[in-house]
Order: sequence, then structure tokens, then C-alpha cells
Amino acid sequence: MLGSMTTQGAALLLSRRDLDFLLHDWLDAESLLTRPRFAEHSRETVDAVLDLAAEVAAEHFAPHNKRADAEEPTFDGRRVHMIPEVRKALDVLAQTGLIESSTELPHVVSTAAFAWFQAANPGTWAYPFLTIAAANLLRAHGTPEQIDAYVGPMAEGRFHGTMCLSEPQAGSSLADITTRAEPQPDGTHRLFGNKMWISAGEHELGENIVHLVLAKIPGGPPGVKGISLFAVPKFLADGQRNDIALAGLNHKMGYRGTTNTLLNFGEGAHTPDGRPGAVGQLVGPPNGGLACMFHMMNEARIGVGAGAAALGYTGYLKSVDYARTRTQGRPPAGKDPAAPPVPIIEHPDVRRMLLAQKCYAEGALALVLYCGRLLDEQHTGADPEGALLLLDVLTPIAKSWPSQWCVVANDLAIQVHGGYGYTREYDVEQHYRDNRLNPIHEGTHGIQALDLLGRKVVMQDGAGLTLLRERVAATCARATTGEPAELAAQLTAVWDRIIAVTAQIHSTADPDRLADATTYLEAVGHAVIAWIWLEQYLACGDRDEPFHRGKRQAARFFFRRELPRTGPQLDLLAALDRTTVEMDPGWF
Amino acid sequence: MLGSMTTQGAALLLSRRDLDFLLHDWLDAESLLTRPRFAEHSRETVDAVLDLAAEVAAEHFAPHNKRADAEEPTFDGRRVHMIPEVRKALDVLAQTGLIESSTELPHVVSTAAFAWFQAANPGTWAYPFLTIAAANLLRAHGTPEQIDAYVGPMAEGRFHGTMCLSEPQAGSSLADITTRAEPQPDGTHRLFGNKMWISAGEHELGENIVHLVLAKIPGGPPGVKGISLFAVPKFLADGQRNDIALAGLNHKMGYRGTTNTLLNFGEGAHTPDGRPGAVGQLVGPPNGGLACMFHMMNEARIGVGAGAAALGYTGYLKSVDYARTRTQGRPPAGKDPAAPPVPIIEHPDVRRMLLAQKCYAEGALALVLYCGRLLDEQHTGADPEGALLLLDVLTPIAKSWPSQWCVVANDLAIQVHGGYGYTREYDVEQHYRDNRLNPIHEGTHGIQALDLLGRKVVMQDGAGLTLLRERVAATCARATTGEPAELAAQLTAVWDRIIAVTAQIHSTADPDRLADATTYLEAVGHAVIAWIWLEQYLACGDRDEPFHRGKRQAARFFFRRELPRTGPQLDLLAALDRTTVEMDPGWF
Repeated sequence: MLGSMTTQGAALLLSRRDLDFLLHDWLDAESLLTRPRFAEHSRETVDAVLDLAAEVAAEHFAPHNKRADAEEPTFDGRRVHMIPEVRKALDVLAQTGLIESSTELPHVVSTAAFAWFQAANPGTWAYPFLTIAAANLLRAHGTPEQIDAYVGPMAEGRFHGTMCLSEPQAGSSLADITTRAEPQPDGTHRLFGNKMWISAGEHELGENIVHLVLAKIPGGPPGVKGISLFAVPKFLADGQRNDIALAGLNHKMGYRGTTNTLLNFGEGAHTPDGRPGAVGQLVGPPNGGLACMFHMMNEARIGVGAGAAALGYTGYLKSVDYARTRTQGRPPAGKDPAAPPVPIIEHPDVRRMLLAQKCYAEGALALVLYCGRLLDEQHTGADPEGALLLLDVLTPIAKSWPSQWCVVANDLAIQVHGGYGYTREYDVEQHYRDNRLNPIHEGTHGIQALDLLGRKVVMQDGAGLTLLRERVAATCARATTGEPAELAAQLTAVWDRIIAVTAQIHSTADPDRLADATTYLEAVGHAVIAWIWLEQYLACGDRDEPFHRGKRQAARFFFRRELPRTGPQLDLLAALDRTTVEMDPGWF
Repeated sequence: MLGSMTTQGAALLLSRRDLDFLLHDWLDAESLLTRPRFAEHSRETVDAVLDLAAEVAAEHFAPHNKRADAEEPTFDGRRVHMIPEVRKALDVLAQTGLIESSTELPHVVSTAAFAWFQAANPGTWAYPFLTIAAANLLRAHGTPEQIDAYVGPMAEGRFHGTMCLSEPQAGSSLADITTRAEPQPDGTHRLFGNKMWISAGEHELGENIVHLVLAKIPGGPPGVKGISLFAVPKFLADGQRNDIALAGLNHKMGYRGTTNTLLNFGEGAHTPDGRPGAVGQLVGPPNGGLACMFHMMNEARIGVGAGAAALGYTGYLKSVDYARTRTQGRPPAGKDPAAPPVPIIEHPDVRRMLLAQKCYAEGALALVLYCGRLLDEQHTGADPEGALLLLDVLTPIAKSWPSQWCVVANDLAIQVHGGYGYTREYDVEQHYRDNRLNPIHEGTHGIQALDLLGRKVVMQDGAGLTLLRERVAATCARATTGEPAELAAQLTAVWDRIIAVTAQIHSTADPDRLADATTYLEAVGHAVIAWIWLEQYLACGDRDEPFHRGKRQAARFFFRRELPRTGPQLDLLAALDRTTVEMDPGWF
């Protein structure tokens, strides 16, 4: 049980009631615990992990979220300095063993547990988030020696990890990276090149930082087929400093607590044996680096979506809290100025802004948990191929939809707070700034769109999209009477159009057929979230507490006010509109 | 003529070519110069004013925009400190006489001239912006003595002004203000109360600050009918400090260069004659303060819209510039990794983001200039009542539409820049933060919506809306053939629905009929901007330079991709949807 102060703080981060509803009433997470992999666990351990995550997030991460934003890390040319609370929070986290135990829990549970930290303090959470991702990658593709050397210390919080993909001249376009890795007689490689936007690329939060770096071995094939993956530690096994130098910190609009770096590899800043070049160990096969990296991509992208959802959620809860206590104005029926003003939650326009946030935040969280559940099916379920197929098609949506709409949620949270929301005395403006990173990193919004329309819905003759459509149809089939049947009919019509439009787009060999991929992504995203809301409606069953009434009203809101946005989008796609294609760059 | 460096800097603020197009090819601003009021002016003086504004904005305002954001004003408990560039810029501005001459120029010209400053540095521009508004108010409602004492020094930049409406417990709800003004035997009043969110409420940029304060004279009617307006100078005529104290600065997400204050009136911090109470002079009639303040409201709200448009515009120009030079990726038809990457403007999704920005920024600027032209018609035209009627109905849109969509434009500007756009090394993240204030101040988005649906479209039996509809119809009547005729048909259908839906909403006595005022505001806003784009299309005539092709393509984009958003909005309004009304606050 949490102490009352912690409960209060945690209650403004996420709703435990909603998490329990999603995990148990909807996704039946307990059924996973009967599988051999999770046999040691029970509902009690799941509850305890969520309690612990909420407690540590509320007590050790949330309190320094503002300070880490106001006093961002600095670089004096030699070392990076940051506020001490970050290290303290990570030390507490390491002591709890949460990170280690997360690898033994179902993904759906760890996704829920980690969401507390993402809501409390995304800047500090980025350090363990990246470390977990790096450890998972090494666990999947590293040699036993690499796993021994790095994964254990990472799980203990002693070593940290990074993902080094982008370069200054090549952000979204990995084909153009120029970092090179020269083979050495001892089997290692020496790396030379610059890596940009590397989160957590330098700090002193642990004993070592293991960079997972994409680079090209000279003589390999051009483009993405010649990319290899390397583990490049800041400190070599003998304790010497590797040839990696921090060239500078990027100063961002949000996420200021996370160092974001330009790293120079192999420029001779440190020369362990008198020669320049950063010593790296090949991970996975030569020229197979992108496949290794993408192996972890579903997970990382769902993690980004979960982070966006968590920030949308905490902003929602804070604006509900504000709207219940702030009084202003009077209802239209009683404009007597002598009457006392009412809490602003009484105004329909405020309730509109709160309902929209509820739809976005709870819908986004539900989707990423659903994807977490699919990861479990992929790893421990009866139909791993089917789970992976569905996951592949849902991942660009699980990444991009929360990233887009939970920024909108934070925008509405500011608006509910009025002038106060625009000040740094309240939390919501920081959520808005922090959340704005999510449509950019781990593949921009446009990259997700190309992934969905250009790859995921056509792969295996469209098997992924077909499977998704079947899942939607199965949900609709359960909605046989009353309001759910009406919603199901609306949803079916939208999905029928999506299938038709997808076929129409891909029936042409027009090289510009992907020009409106973003519109497609956004239409399919709304159609997926509508399905998720119908699922939630059905999961309420005949229970009728205020919680369930709120869920049903949010579902109605989404179907009446959000899903219809797809109409003009699908019209545009069906028209194969060429307005953007035909715009000459010289006309701007 | 501008120097080449200035031209370069100014070219990333606004497009002079577009301003000339809008002012002359479209709005025929030169025809105003034949009126007696503007007889001293010619096209040459108009051009010179725009040149001068661009030069001062580019050379003296833009260069410290970032520094003013990074090093915001501080309060040491006694004095406010800010970077010296602010004072220097205002001194240069005062020396040019631009502010003084603006009162003699048509509104449409001064709106265009001031937009350069709003694009360059909204934080510094806020000081003259508020001073101009205060001077205009005093000119309209002050006594000859008040005008003598304050307006001249304001025009010279020696005195500054503020607008003190909000209080900590009463933001949007002026009925609830509690600042009281006690009549004194000498005809002055003594003011007691706290005012919140007062921009430019304290600084040392001039010799004096004249606060225009809403307060209640004891014994007056309750609510807004008992509000009076007072001029309350920081320093009294005899040089003594008035009883006004800075209680603190608000720390905002953006607009950081402008001090935003909580002011305490009459708490005895200064006692000119041994008694507490801030000495104020009544402006206008007792209990007539709100009417005086609202007299200036159209102008102030159009000014907010213009500021939002200007920030949208500069973000657009900067992202076009970036997209032309930044190379990345390859067109789908030529995915050869050995081929060099192309400028990102070659990618249709990037052109989509640029076209959307162009629609929002140029459409918003055109609308506020149109409203500026209406102000001229109101003050010097043949049909002042008609102009005022149209202005009344357009003002909530001219305030809210740019405030909403030019933040979206800035969001897209960030996205075009990718990771770089999220850093403070580039300009666009600041534009996004600064612009986010605009849907909040001078009446929030929701307040504009209630103003439009609850007041402006019903006043005088709907005469304002009828007149607007006639203007739209007149435009459509000029679009007789080809593509313009197609756009006109689309526009006519939308406007017919708006008229029908407006009547439908007001045919009911349901006290909740205004519940979806925001949806109504947004639908009408898009319909107004579509009309403005058709106007621009027609103003191109048969000219076919790249500039005109761009205008036509943007018009197409708006009609194909933006105007259809109104379909679901009008459906919702026509259904008199009650989802938000029926949401019980206890269900959140």
C-alpha cells in the first residue's frame, strides 16, 4: 500500500484504476501468468510492481521534473554537470530491482509500470529507457561475452546504454551514414565518424556508457545494406578511456533533463594505445546492423508511444483537477452576477476539452498496452507469427498516434488552465514541450507514415492489414445490440473504406503513390483508436459505476467527434489528390 | 531601399512581395489615400513606411529575440532588470517616428507595418503594442487633460501603457473583479486591488507607465455593469511614486521578453500623501468602463491575430529556406543509394507541410489586413455602420483563427526542421512557444467562440452574419468560370450550411445551445479563410508568375484539404450533439 502523500502525487500521474481496468478487465493479463515463462508471478506480484513503480515515480522522479527542466545539464568542455537528483532517482530505481525484474514480467505489465516514470519525469527516465533498450538488443544479438560484459551491469544500473544512429547530415536517412568501422587484427573494429542527437550520450550517472553504433565497414554494399552494428563502450575493459569525445550538447525545447549530444568517434581525443579510433565490437553479422537495430524497433517505438501517452495522461489528470477547483463564470441559465461563480468543469466547453484529452490519453495508453500484450504473444504465445504480423502493422500507429494526439491533449490541458497553464509555475506547459519531441525521434511522423503505407500494409500480400481488419471485425461481431452495435456499424464502414482505399493506392504504379502517406497514417490511426474505444466500451460489460460511465461517454465522444475526421481524409486519398506533388518548389 | 543584409534578414520575417500583393493588388489600399484623412500620403510614403518597419524590425528587433527569451526579465524585489537591447530597440523605434505616423496612416497599412515587428520579436514588440492600444483608448475616451498628459508622451515613446483587466480570481470573467475605486473630494479615485497577467506592468523602459485599470466604484450595479475605467500612472504628475507595487513576475513558456506581472494597487507600498490607495483618474463615464475598453477590443483582437499570423509567417519562411538547403533521402522513383540525396523540399510530405503553413500564415495575414481595411472603412469610409457590423462578426475569427492555425503552422515548421527544429539553436521552437499565448490572451479561444455564436451572429437580427454571407456571395459571383467557379460552388455549399445551422441552433431556447460554440467558431473560421483564399485567387487575375502559381496552389490546397474539415463539424452542430453537456463531472 502506498502512503497517502504518494497516493496523492501518483494520482496526478496516471490512473491506477484505469491501468487495472485495461490490464485485467480488458487485456486479461493474468492469463499470461499461467505460461511457464511467467510462472513465478501472480496477480499480487503484478500489483506490487505497479505499486512500487508508482511510488518511486511519485517520490523520486516527479519532484525534480521541473528543476531538471529549469537547470539543464551543462558541459564545461571536459565534463557534463547535472542536478544531483537525477543520480539519486536512478540509484533508488536500481535498488528496487524494478529494471531487472521487468525482464521477467510480461511486456504488458512492464509497459504499464514504466508509464509511471514516463509521466513523472521523461527527462530522467530516458537514461534507464535507453539502457533497457540497449540491454535487450545485446541480449538478442550479442555474443555471450558481450552479454556478460554489458547486460548484467546494465540491469543493475551500473552501466548505461545509447543508440547511435543519426549523423549530422543523415537524420532520417540511414542510407547516408558515413561513420566507418575499420577491422583490426584482434577482431575488434576502430570507428571514425560523428553521431548526432544521441540522447544520454554523455553523463556520469554510472560506471560506463555502452554506445550501440551503426557504422559501415569499408568495402560493404552501398546504402542500408552495408550498415553494421557495434558496441562501443566509453571505458574499455582495462579501464582506459575509449576514443569518443563529446563535441557538444544540443539545447532543446523540452526533454531538457536528458543530455542530447553530438559525439565524435575516432578523432583522437583519447588514444588508448597511441592510435586514434574508437574501439568497437561487432554485434550481429557484418552488414546486418540495421536488421539487429530494427529487431528492437517495435519495442522502442511502442515505448515512445507509451511516453507520449503518459504525458498526455498526466496533463489530463492535472487539468481535471484544476477544472474541479478553479471557479469562474456562471452557467448560461443562471447569469445572475450576484450568484457565486461555478467550478469551470461545469462549462460544457471545458468538459469538451477534458473529454478530448481523456479520449486521446486513455486511447493512446490502451493502444500501447495492447501492443505490449502482442509482444507477449510474440514471445510466449501460441501464435507468434500472427502476433508479430499484427504488431508490425500496429507499431507505426502506436508510435505516431500518441505522439500526435497527446501533444494536442497537452495543448488542451494548457487551455483549460488559461493563463496559469502558460506559466512555468504549473506543470502542463512542460508536458507540452516535452511531448513535442515524440513526433520527431525514433522515426519522424512522416517516416512512420511511409513505413505503414509503403511497407507494413503491403508486406506478405497485405496479411498484416487483413489480420488487423479481422480483429476489428471480431470486436464488431461482439457488439450485437444497442449503442455498441451502432458504434460497430460506424466502425465497419470506416474500415471498409480503409481497405478499399489501400487497394486503390497500391493498384497504381505511380511513383508518387505514397505522397499522402501521412494522411493515410492519420486516418488509419483514428480508425484503430476508435476500435480500441469500442473494445473498452465492451470491456465495461454491464457495470455502471462513474468510471464505466466515463469510459462509455469517452467512447461516444470519440465516435461522434473524432472518427468523422477520417471522412475527408479518406475522400482525399480516394481522389489520389496531387496538390502536393504538383507544387513546384519554386512557387513557395 | 534596404541594405542587402537587412533585406536578407527581413526576407525571413515576412514576404514584402505578398504584402504588396495583399495591400495593393487585392485590397486597393491606394484608394484610401484619396480620402481627406490620408491626403498627405501616397504610395511612396506607404512603401517607405513598410521599408522602414522591415529595416528596424530586422536590424533592431530580430537580433535580440533569442537572447530576450533565454535571459528573461528578473525582479530583485525592488526593480525589474532586463537585457539592454530591449530599451535600445524601443529608442530606435521612437526615433523613427513610426508609432506617431501610424496614427495618421490607414489601419491596413499600419497593421502591415507592425507585422514586421510581430514576426521579429513579439516579446519586445509587446511594449509599444500595449502603449499604442492605451493611447488609442485615451484618445477616444479621455478628457482633453488626460490626452495632453499621456497621449503625446506615449506617441513619443517616453510613456508606456498597460491594460489591467484580469484579477487572480477572475480571468475571463470580468463580472467578478473586486478592485475598488473610492471617489475622493478632489475628483480623483483611490484604487485598491490586485491585477493579474498584466503584460508590461513594470519595467524601466521609459519615464512612466500609465495603467488603464478596470475597477468598481462602491455602490454601483453588480456584475459588468458596475465596472469603471481609470488611468493610474506609475508616477504622478508631481513625480511622486503612485501606490502600485509589483507583487511578482509570471514565468511563461514563451513571450519571455515581456514582463508579465501581478500588480497590487493601494496596498500602501507607496503613500504619496501619507495615505494608501493608488491615485486614478476616471476615464469615460462612471460604470461605463467596459464599453470604453471594448471600444478598443476589435483593434486589440485583430492585433493579436496579426501577431499570430506574423509568427506563423516567419516560421513558414524559415522552414521553406531550410527545406531548400537541407538534403536528405531520395525520391521514390530513384532509390539508388549511390545517387546524392535531394533537398527535402523535393519530398511531397515536406511540401505538404510547407503548403499547409503557407495556407495558414498567408490566409491569416490576409484576413487581419482585410479587417484593417474594414477599420479604415469604419473610420473614414462611406458606410461606417456596415463596416463596423462586418468587423464585429469577423473580429472573433480574426483573433482566434490565426491564434489556432498559426501555432499549427509553427508545429509544422518544427517538423520540417526535424531534430534541429526542436533545438533552441534554430528559431522555430521559440515561435511555437511564443505563439501559444495567442489563443489565451485578449479573450481565450472559448470566449471568442461565445462572442461569435452567442452575440455577433445574433445581434441586430443576424445582420452581421447576413452581411458577411453577402460578401462571400459577391466574391463567388465574380468566380464565373473554370477552377474559380468550382471553388465558389464548394464555398457556397459550406456557407449555405453555416446559415442553416446558425438558424437551427438559435431556434431553440435550450440554455445549452452554446455548448458547441467552439466547434462553430472553428467551422466558420475555416469557411471565412476559404473565402479569403478565393479572393486571393481572383486577385491574381491572369498573371502567372511563380508567385501567382503558388497562391493558386495554396488556394487549391485549402479547398481540397482544409475546407472539408467543416463537414463533420457542421454535421455535429446540426445534430445538436449533447455529449459534452451530458458528461457528468464525476465521471472524469
